[in-house]
Formats: sequence, structure tokens, C-alpha cells
Amino acid sequence: MIRYPDGTPYKKKDTKKRTSKLDKDELSLSAANRGMDLEHDINLSNEYYNSKNIALIYKRPTPINIVKVDYTHGAKITSAYFEEQSTTDYNGIYKGRYVDFEAKSTKSKTSFPLANITSHQIEHLKKVNQQGGIAFFIIQFEKHDKVFLLDSQYVIDYYDNGKRKSIPYEDVVNNGIEIKKGYSPRLFYIDAIEQQYFKK
Amino acid sequence: MIRYPDGTPYKKKDTKKRTSKLDKDELSLSAANRGMDLEHDINLSNEYYNSKNIALIYKRPTPINIVKVDYTHGAKITSAYFEEQSTTDYNGIYKGRYVDFEAKSTKSKTSFPLANITSHQIEHLKKVNQQGGIAFFIIQFEKHDKVFLLDSQYVIDYYDNGKRKSIPYEDVVNNGIEIKKGYSPRLFYIDAIEQQYFKK
Repeated sequence: MIRYPDGTPYKKKDTKKRTSKLDKDELSLSAANRGMDLEHDINLSNEYYNSKNIALIYKRPTPINIVKVDYTHGAKITSAYFEEQSTTDYNGIYKGRYVDFEAKSTKSKTSFPLANITSHQIEHLKKVNQQGGIAFFIIQFEKHDKVFLLDSQYVIDYYDNGKRKSIPYEDVVNNGIEIKKGYSPRLFYIDAIEQQYFKK
Repeated sequence: MIRYPDGTPYKKKDTKKRTSKLDKDELSLSAANRGMDLEHDINLSNEYYNSKNIALIYKRPTPINIVKVDYTHGAKITSAYFEEQSTTDYNGIYKGRYVDFEAKSTKSKTSFPLANITSHQIEHLKKVNQQGGIAFFIIQFEKHDKVFLLDSQYVIDYYDNGKRKSIPYEDVVNNGIEIKKGYSPRLFYIDAIEQQYFKK
């Protein structure tokens, strides 16, 4: 038996099976990765906008409830749990205005499920609007390979109405702004902010 | 020997010694607690301002570098480390304006040491100013039992000048705004923002 240097046995990969699986699932596989990529794309876009002094927008770190810290060698957290973000994921400043948004991705073709949003986030966004801030959602429809900016008030109205559990795709298309994609930035979402909040 | 229910032996506390120590160190003890209390007081003030719809300001969670997560019972973080905040501790919105600040406490009577501030934070505050945001420091002098709002540009100038390693107390008094203290909010720092950025 051939072995790797660490002793684990070498197993020839079944490349034929793998290739055929890729052929078949290639599209859906790349689509499945997109949800996780949305956050990454926004973070890269923020880095671009920050470096060009166009905007200054950061992801809020995920709040963590720390249970135990070991101080024997520096401060090592040995027990902690993730906490729910009570606000939104992103905030910052653009042209002097306060900007606040939440990014969500859905695998649904037909609608954006409101279950993706917490009541804390709705309350938070209402307050941002009251204070005169710019508040919106970035919504990705993975199956359509499209990303939209949708004003928070539109989502809040849907949420408070309570009749529907999701926003139909068509409504997002007609009331949102499609965010252009590229290499740098990955998502031209500042262009969408311009269109939605500054050119009206 | 008298024992507690868990088996540990009961040891009569030397109350006399403890009391005399308190008598002597009472002032400096309460001063030592104040540093830790500054963050707490700001958080309580933010809760007050948020609940009254006066402002919407949050503490950014401390970023944590997660090394290992155990998924056997939910998601438990079993190994992680604290990371340095690359921005400031607080940001939010007041009267439509973006607000960003860092809070620092010093035990020094004579000056505020610039070593308390990282170059990342200076860079961040410069960008906030470029974008037209309101950026400042909340500085507590524990020994004087006083808290000040000091505009970020004043601190940036000191930092970039590089000649001094600290800002003299007198300069903070003369160029900052003293923040009034109370019960609710603990720190009337919005009043200081009004005075510094809106009444000029």
C-alpha cells in the first residue's frame, strides 16, 4: 500500500465519478456557494470603497457570549457561544450620511422569506429611519444569480402588514435596485445607494 | 471546624483589617473601579438615548478570532482569541449624522497618554472626518472624576505631530467639553455633541 508521509494510506481518487458529478451538478454547486459568498463579496466591496475613500462601511463582528477564559497563556477563550445580532450586519458612512443594512441570501426562486429577518432587526431599522439614516437590505436570489438593494421601509411595510410570509421576487425586482457585479468592487452597491437615495 | 455545605472550611473574615484597609484606600478603590465603569456608563447612556429615540448608538462587539468550534451540542466555541479592534468602540447616528467615537480612561492626573490609541484607530477617525462624520474621544480622568468629549481632529493633530506622548490635562479641559453626569443617562454625552458640533 502506498502511504502519505504522515502514514495515512493513499487512495486513488475516483476522478471519473467526480467529473461526471461535476458535469451534472456544476450549476447548482456554484449556486450553493453563492450564499456564503455574499458576505465575502460585500466585505471585499467594503474594503474597496474604504480604500478609495468612497465610503466607510464595516461588518459588525458577530456578538459572542464568553463563558470561560483561560489566562495561563495570554487570554484564550475556552468556552463561548454565538449570539444573535440584535442590530444589522453592516453600518457606516457615505457622503456624511449614516448607512445601515442587512444582507440576506435566498435559495428560493419565487420570493424572499421574511423569516430571514428578526423582529429586533425590524425595530432597529425603524429607528435608523426615524433618525434620518439610510437603511436597506441587500438581497441575493441565488437561483437567479441577482443581487438587489431594497429600501428598508418597503420590507418593514411587508413585515408589519403580516399578511404575507415572503416578498415575491417580482416585487423585489420592481421596487428594488439591481446591484451591478464586477471584480473591484464585487458589488457596486454604492451605485445602487446613489440611485435609491441621492438621485431622487 | 465549621464547614460550608460544599465541604470547604469556614474561615472567619478578618473584618477589622479589611475595614481599616477600606478606610485608608476608600477613595483610590472607588477610583480604580471607575475605569471599568466608563464602558458600562456609556452602554447604559446608549440604552437611554436609544429608548428615547434621541440617538441610536451601539458598542461594536469585540472582534474574536475563532479557532475551534464544537458542533456536538449546538455550536460551542472551544478555542478563540480576542482581536484588536481596528476601528473604534462605538458608532451610530444622531440627527441624521454619522457618529463615531472611542472611549478611554486614564489613571494619570496630569495628561492623557496617546499610547492608549492605536494607529488603526487614528486612520479610521481620519476617514470618518473625510466622510463628514462626527468623530471624537470620550476621555475619563479617573483621579479628577471628570469625563470629557474631545474632538478627534484635536487628538489626530497631537498624534501626527509626534512631539508629545500625551495630551496635558489642561489642554483637554480647555479644548474639550466636559460631559455632565447623572443617573439617566449616566453620561449626558449627547449634550456635549450638541455643544461641540451643532451649536457652533
